[in-house]
Amino acid sequence: MFSQKVEQLIAALSHLPSIGSKTAQRLAIHILQNDRGTGVEIAKALTEAVGSVGNCQDCRNLSEDALCRICSDTRRSNESICIVEGPMDVLAIEQSTHFKGKYFVLMGRLSPLDGIGPAEIGLDILEARLQNGDVKELILATNITVEGDATAYYIGELAKKYGVTTSRIAFGVPMGGELEYIDSHTLGHAFESRTSL
Amino acid sequence: MFSQKVEQLIAALSHLPSIGSKTAQRLAIHILQNDRGTGVEIAKALTEAVGSVGNCQDCRNLSEDALCRICSDTRRSNESICIVEGPMDVLAIEQSTHFKGKYFVLMGRLSPLDGIGPAEIGLDILEARLQNGDVKELILATNITVEGDATAYYIGELAKKYGVTTSRIAFGVPMGGELEYIDSHTLGHAFESRTSL
Repeated sequence: MFSQKVEQLIAALSHLPSIGSKTAQRLAIHILQNDRGTGVEIAKALTEAVGSVGNCQDCRNLSEDALCRICSDTRRSNESICIVEGPMDVLAIEQSTHFKGKYFVLMGRLSPLDGIGPAEIGLDILEARLQNGDVKELILATNITVEGDATAYYIGELAKKYGVTTSRIAFGVPMGGELEYIDSHTLGHAFESRTSL
Repeated sequence: MFSQKVEQLIAALSHLPSIGSKTAQRLAIHILQNDRGTGVEIAKALTEAVGSVGNCQDCRNLSEDALCRICSDTRRSNESICIVEGPMDVLAIEQSTHFKGKYFVLMGRLSPLDGIGPAEIGLDILEARLQNGDVKELILATNITVEGDATAYYIGELAKKYGVTTSRIAFGVPMGGELEYIDSHTLGHAFESRTSL
């Protein structure tokens, strides 16, 4: 329907997650009709980011510098490391807790069926950090899924070898959760993991 | 929170309509973590489209060629022109009707308070087309809003000067609409515009 270059732009935008073909059309038309400046800005930011952003050498989070902002922050403790699956999890924890240690971002989770083993999620780098003795505590904040749990268990075993204390974030009924509407799996776990008052 | 280039990408993406800061974060992280190819593709498509897409010289729709696909389609009649406000409206009409004439895309609507007069929506180009005598019918398919109606009225008066038949798309209760839930403005108009069986 549209001319070739417009269709190409729509096709490219619709490869993004949560952007369907209708939204891609709207975005492409909006950029070309009203806001070419934003189009140029996005193209420039994309080219620069894709070309230069790699992984922080300490925590594996996305960063164009050798050390990311958190790893290069000297006010944060090296003794406590929080293990998460992805960059968005770092953001979520930074926004909701007062954690002042560092992170280790797996950029995935153990999933042998997909060929993702310990090396693919950077556990060799993590082991090197455990080996050098600075780390006293690991907080396992992988997702509460089968893979996330398996990953946490695997890292817990690794930490034991180096005598590092590990803990797993609590799971149970979320705040404001009404028991009536909570899925039985979550409620079952919450019941078993009850804590004494 | 993220490194500078990542933050720049998030900021650029969040300038798009319907993309909030949270979605922009997700999209940026998705591209950098899992799908850099899409990032490169979007940057390339954007740069090409912003650089080369202009307006069709006949209908003003977005096109990198002098004539858009519809205007250069010789199987379509030059006698009937459908006037719409934007490129998405052309798409909507193509998908829902069997219209085989051509379009004229205003790329806006008359809005004197915003400084948008007849010249800004290309009515000089439309008048030239009416003048040369090919056009026999104008279908006014601007939106059913105050500005859309005013624009349709203005173009209707223009067409009268050249003896061109004009019609306005019908407005009333939409298909499947239950009277109980229709807004009173629409229902009032539908009642007044009743047609004999």
